[in-house]
Amino acid sequence: MTAPKYDVLGIGNAIVDVIAKSEEAFLVDEGLAKGSMALIDEARAEALYAKMGPAIEASGGSAANTLAGLGSLGGKAAFIGKVKADTLGEVFRHDITAIGVDFPTPAATDGIATARCFILVTPDGERTMSTYLGACQGLSVDDIDEATVKDAAVTYLEGYLWDPPAAKEAFRKAAEIAHGAGRQVALSLSDAFCVARYRAEFLALLKDGVVDILFANEGELTSLYETDDIETALKAVAKDAKLAAVTLGAKGSAIIEGSERIDVPAAALEGPIVDLTGAGDLFAAGFLYGHANGLGLKRSAELGGLAAAEVIQHVGARPQVELKKLAGEKGLI
Amino acid sequence: MTAPKYDVLGIGNAIVDVIAKSEEAFLVDEGLAKGSMALIDEARAEALYAKMGPAIEASGGSAANTLAGLGSLGGKAAFIGKVKADTLGEVFRHDITAIGVDFPTPAATDGIATARCFILVTPDGERTMSTYLGACQGLSVDDIDEATVKDAAVTYLEGYLWDPPAAKEAFRKAAEIAHGAGRQVALSLSDAFCVARYRAEFLALLKDGVVDILFANEGELTSLYETDDIETALKAVAKDAKLAAVTLGAKGSAIIEGSERIDVPAAALEGPIVDLTGAGDLFAAGFLYGHANGLGLKRSAELGGLAAAEVIQHVGARPQVELKKLAGEKGLI
Repeated sequence: MTAPKYDVLGIGNAIVDVIAKSEEAFLVDEGLAKGSMALIDEARAEALYAKMGPAIEASGGSAANTLAGLGSLGGKAAFIGKVKADTLGEVFRHDITAIGVDFPTPAATDGIATARCFILVTPDGERTMSTYLGACQGLSVDDIDEATVKDAAVTYLEGYLWDPPAAKEAFRKAAEIAHGAGRQVALSLSDAFCVARYRAEFLALLKDGVVDILFANEGELTSLYETDDIETALKAVAKDAKLAAVTLGAKGSAIIEGSERIDVPAAALEGPIVDLTGAGDLFAAGFLYGHANGLGLKRSAELGGLAAAEVIQHVGARPQVELKKLAGEKGLI
Repeated sequence: MTAPKYDVLGIGNAIVDVIAKSEEAFLVDEGLAKGSMALIDEARAEALYAKMGPAIEASGGSAANTLAGLGSLGGKAAFIGKVKADTLGEVFRHDITAIGVDFPTPAATDGIATARCFILVTPDGERTMSTYLGACQGLSVDDIDEATVKDAAVTYLEGYLWDPPAAKEAFRKAAEIAHGAGRQVALSLSDAFCVARYRAEFLALLKDGVVDILFANEGELTSLYETDDIETALKAVAKDAKLAAVTLGAKGSAIIEGSERIDVPAAALEGPIVDLTGAGDLFAAGFLYGHANGLGLKRSAELGGLAAAEVIQHVGARPQVELKKLAGEKGLI
């Protein structure tokens, strides 16, 4: 087995975020479940946008945010995801390649537009997302480049890929290629509602060994095991996953590998929480960077916590400082 | 004369900002004069974008930023400017109307794309701008709606309007209508390089009484009077302008009305300067809000300083908090 070219290959929905501040009442008026991600169609996207406050646009997508974080840490990453050849598709491609991530997937030249995620950030920093999947629905097995998958130490997949119909097959194909090449497969559970939609399939991926590394937050993991008690869920995942990295908000994270459990406190914040979007994605970025570079579970979780802390102190789901420099200043790399 | 419907009508370039962090060396490599605004063509826009780091997109445009600030303060505003009916044009229209500003100008249905301003923010918070004017070049006298101009206490024009060829005539027509209706006309000098391009014309606008209120920063005013000494420039503008509001960076602002001069210190910052984009635009927003609401020169300048302080503490040129609430907390309105 040759040394991998990439620390991580991410496969996910290629989305541009449209981010606006919002009062709690607006979520209620619009029937939005605070903190969740809901799928919307084009008509609903237009109607919601018309009612939203002034916004900014920033490239997003869960796995893509993780890769941007990995690139910012100095890691080598590639992304597979589907945009259309339109303005927002060009924005997405610019932003991910500008941070040093390879993005080999060709844009769709016709059909529906590049995906948008309308993110409403309430005064407490919580984000509520409404996603129009658009061109992401065109991602298929044909977009899984075998050589790229073989060349990545970890192939990282977002649970949201279960939403667009053909992407699930792309996900499975990528996992097979990765394992055939002796590489690892990671999955992020993405969202508690996403887990509720695909619980049985996600559990099977773990139990069948399709997934080696699981990323989840408290809500997602308790949803997966249908319990209100995070400790019960952590005990359950210890049996099902080879390695699980579970974020616990202000309590930090718990890393579970078989019978071993490491609890890592959250990184200190310098300012207030502004926008929680991307917290989990950036935790995964730091953790995967550490994991791919053999830094050990504790240090990897600390890097994850540091990257997550940076991203929640500003609007937008990708780092605004060079994480490599920040991690160096903190003595983590 | 009936009470005006609008505190301010702004006429300016309708631009979406593409904002990226940049090191000083990149500006040197690209031949960009730090702190300036340069006009670029489409080919240069594509080449520069390809070299820039990951960016975010946010509605901008100098006068439009001022109106967004005015709307955030609870003022009544309208905007005249030209976008194309494309994705970024829809973004611009959404953002300005969502903050409560009327935007009656129809989008161009063909021709070149909505304008973009590539903004490179260096670690010191200074911004360097490269503007592709795009659809702004289609703004013409036909876009000046007479009723809207008559309905505004102040018609506010950005100096950048001297760049697109037909906009200058639109500017003059608007000023004539405003004065014919007993309203006031304000001009922002926009940028020291813009002043260098149109110095004689800008001076004539003041001396001929086409402009009642002048907004400038130190670099622009000293460029206008071709002096290195701000005090010399302030004495000169006292003779030429009925009212001048001059921002002096960390030193605050000087308001000049005939023989009267009021110096107002800068508002206190709660955090570091992150991005100076929009500082002058937001000063004008606060000042014009105070002026249109009869709050007096000192209070108006304090409101301007407060609005400017908010916008320089985050990325992007429009307020991220409700300025009305902020100003209320500070006891200014």
